[in-house]
Amino acid sequence: MTTVGILGGGQLARMLALSGAPLGLRFLVMDTAADACAGQFAPMVVGDYRDESALAEFASRVDVATFDFENVPAESAQWLAERIPVFPNPRALAIAQDRLAEKTMFRELGIPVPDFQAIDSREQLQAAVEQIGTPCILKTRRLGYDGKGQFRLRSPADVEGAWQALGAQASTVGLILEGFVAFERELSVVAVRGRNGEFRCWPLTENWHVDGVLSASLAPAPVDAALADQAFDHARRIAKSLDYVGVFALELFCRDGVLLANEVAPRVHNSGHWTIEGSETSQFQSHLRAVLGLPLGDTRMVGQACMLNWIGEMPAAEPVLAEPGGHWHDYGKQPRAGRKVGHATLRADNTAELVAVLGRVGQGLGRMEQVTPVIARLQEGAR
Amino acid sequence: MTTVGILGGGQLARMLALSGAPLGLRFLVMDTAADACAGQFAPMVVGDYRDESALAEFASRVDVATFDFENVPAESAQWLAERIPVFPNPRALAIAQDRLAEKTMFRELGIPVPDFQAIDSREQLQAAVEQIGTPCILKTRRLGYDGKGQFRLRSPADVEGAWQALGAQASTVGLILEGFVAFERELSVVAVRGRNGEFRCWPLTENWHVDGVLSASLAPAPVDAALADQAFDHARRIAKSLDYVGVFALELFCRDGVLLANEVAPRVHNSGHWTIEGSETSQFQSHLRAVLGLPLGDTRMVGQACMLNWIGEMPAAEPVLAEPGGHWHDYGKQPRAGRKVGHATLRADNTAELVAVLGRVGQGLGRMEQVTPVIARLQEGAR
Repeated sequence: MTTVGILGGGQLARMLALSGAPLGLRFLVMDTAADACAGQFAPMVVGDYRDESALAEFASRVDVATFDFENVPAESAQWLAERIPVFPNPRALAIAQDRLAEKTMFRELGIPVPDFQAIDSREQLQAAVEQIGTPCILKTRRLGYDGKGQFRLRSPADVEGAWQALGAQASTVGLILEGFVAFERELSVVAVRGRNGEFRCWPLTENWHVDGVLSASLAPAPVDAALADQAFDHARRIAKSLDYVGVFALELFCRDGVLLANEVAPRVHNSGHWTIEGSETSQFQSHLRAVLGLPLGDTRMVGQACMLNWIGEMPAAEPVLAEPGGHWHDYGKQPRAGRKVGHATLRADNTAELVAVLGRVGQGLGRMEQVTPVIARLQEGAR
Repeated sequence: MTTVGILGGGQLARMLALSGAPLGLRFLVMDTAADACAGQFAPMVVGDYRDESALAEFASRVDVATFDFENVPAESAQWLAERIPVFPNPRALAIAQDRLAEKTMFRELGIPVPDFQAIDSREQLQAAVEQIGTPCILKTRRLGYDGKGQFRLRSPADVEGAWQALGAQASTVGLILEGFVAFERELSVVAVRGRNGEFRCWPLTENWHVDGVLSASLAPAPVDAALADQAFDHARRIAKSLDYVGVFALELFCRDGVLLANEVAPRVHNSGHWTIEGSETSQFQSHLRAVLGLPLGDTRMVGQACMLNWIGEMPAAEPVLAEPGGHWHDYGKQPRAGRKVGHATLRADNTAELVAVLGRVGQGLGRMEQVTPVIARLQEGAR
């Protein structure tokens, strides 16, 4: 009997446990919140990730550990890795946690990235804004997610406001200034790498964000095969460079037909949720297979799929459940503004069917604004 | 937040809970065994189904109740149904629990059945064997499953042995003598009926048993459409007659092109396990949708599928996990002779691929005898 420990008890841990149960696995989830939603289907250790006695209890009860949450302190991951197998490895986690280290890695691997500079002072910020130009974005190097910890500068006059908003964090989590990319598309590669170095990708996914939070994903992304192959190649090089084991996502911008790397998420990813019903093997089960050294599973798609995120509160389920290819995911969370509380995946055998399903669901839920950009992209087709 | 109570905590309850989690449901499982495998992923009430205080605790903590186990005492189901919604209804459960009531219902609905007679005494058995002829099978009316509680009579001389084996049960669970059917195929319809009377079937499934226990299932069964339609029609009439809500299986024999009803299982069924990966909506989620009055979900198949049961102990997982369409289900049980401990589902896009996969898995596991009849049927094709 193998017990997999998961640091972080949110919806990713919950879906990992649900998808790993058929492998005969048991799970133990560690989270700071006793009501973390993964706890509805797996036993928990409640404690702070920096609390060594909680970590020691966690370590003593699991055979291997992995993450639902990328911001587990790197030292805690390292402490665990000295005692039990931990995948992905703490170095991969540390690099992915730090926007500066991450973008430096992209550049070293020859993967195009938006302009960036480390920012330690107001003077550096001033100089960097002049060099990179506006618009640009000041971000915390660490602990940012879903658009948090960011300040967009529209002109050099915004330097003062940006520094007031985030300057205090220069000496704690660090800051980075990034050039703003006027992208045509946001894409992501969800990929998995095994302990033996075997590497697989699910089809490229196109994503739409609203207020910095993922709103919709479409797979396969309607782009030409050469662009997808380039994205997969970038992901493969990153995975190898990090000696990565498990599932990760590489987020990319596409501008003038060129892919720019935005960031790596060292875990199963929101833009891969469609794989539960849309692929032969889900990102969740494949991650566990990788972590355990088992065959990775087939990443082939079945038809096409669109994932719609539910933020803040769950809408009515019926319009989705009434669709033949409609699949519902309620994470069992309390509603709260800005919180990811669930998603739906709409699967269809062809584009016309997916367009029709999205139209009905958008109408049925009064959420046409969420589905309209996806419908537009599907109708526009590959270009 | 809706909590679904499940009476019985075996693999069926476990798979119900895993498939219902995405609907935002919580579960409470009641079982007599504290180590029931559903308890690894759902909270439990441990107690005897006849213990009113345990039943009362169970009832107080759930919104609706259903079954993983068809032999929950009919009085316990009735007691619950007077307090909370229970699906399927206790009358349907009671009829399906009793081979005599069940076969009488089939006959009243005009569905062909093997010859049968109720047996209350040794004299009745003698007379019934003369009338029905040998071979025939003496069975307990209630509490039999997986070939248990059965005695096959090859000639009238076996009456004495049959009575010695089962006669004492004539006055407890009752006995029934059934004519032996020299069938060419065993088939099953897995179907679902909603609270509003809506009825759906998954494609017809062909089954192979070894020592009375299911060994392999193949879907869709390679039979002509008229035969499948007849099977679906039988299932539809039974469901309506019982005012059934939820998933059930109708097991059928096919002899000389005629379908004979064998029995109804008033629950999700082993011959429907392939629906987890092989159908748009699994029998498990569809059962929960029916019980909750939600849309039933699409029963359409994706490709073809073969399910192989693991009895006694789990074989090695790798030969299955290495197949692109290979899916593994370990129920997290301790090994024990005769116990269903897991299954695998092999999905393929066409017959040739499924034949090849079955050959590789049979070889890889040293279990050619389990896959050979399925391969033979696939190669023979519809007839």
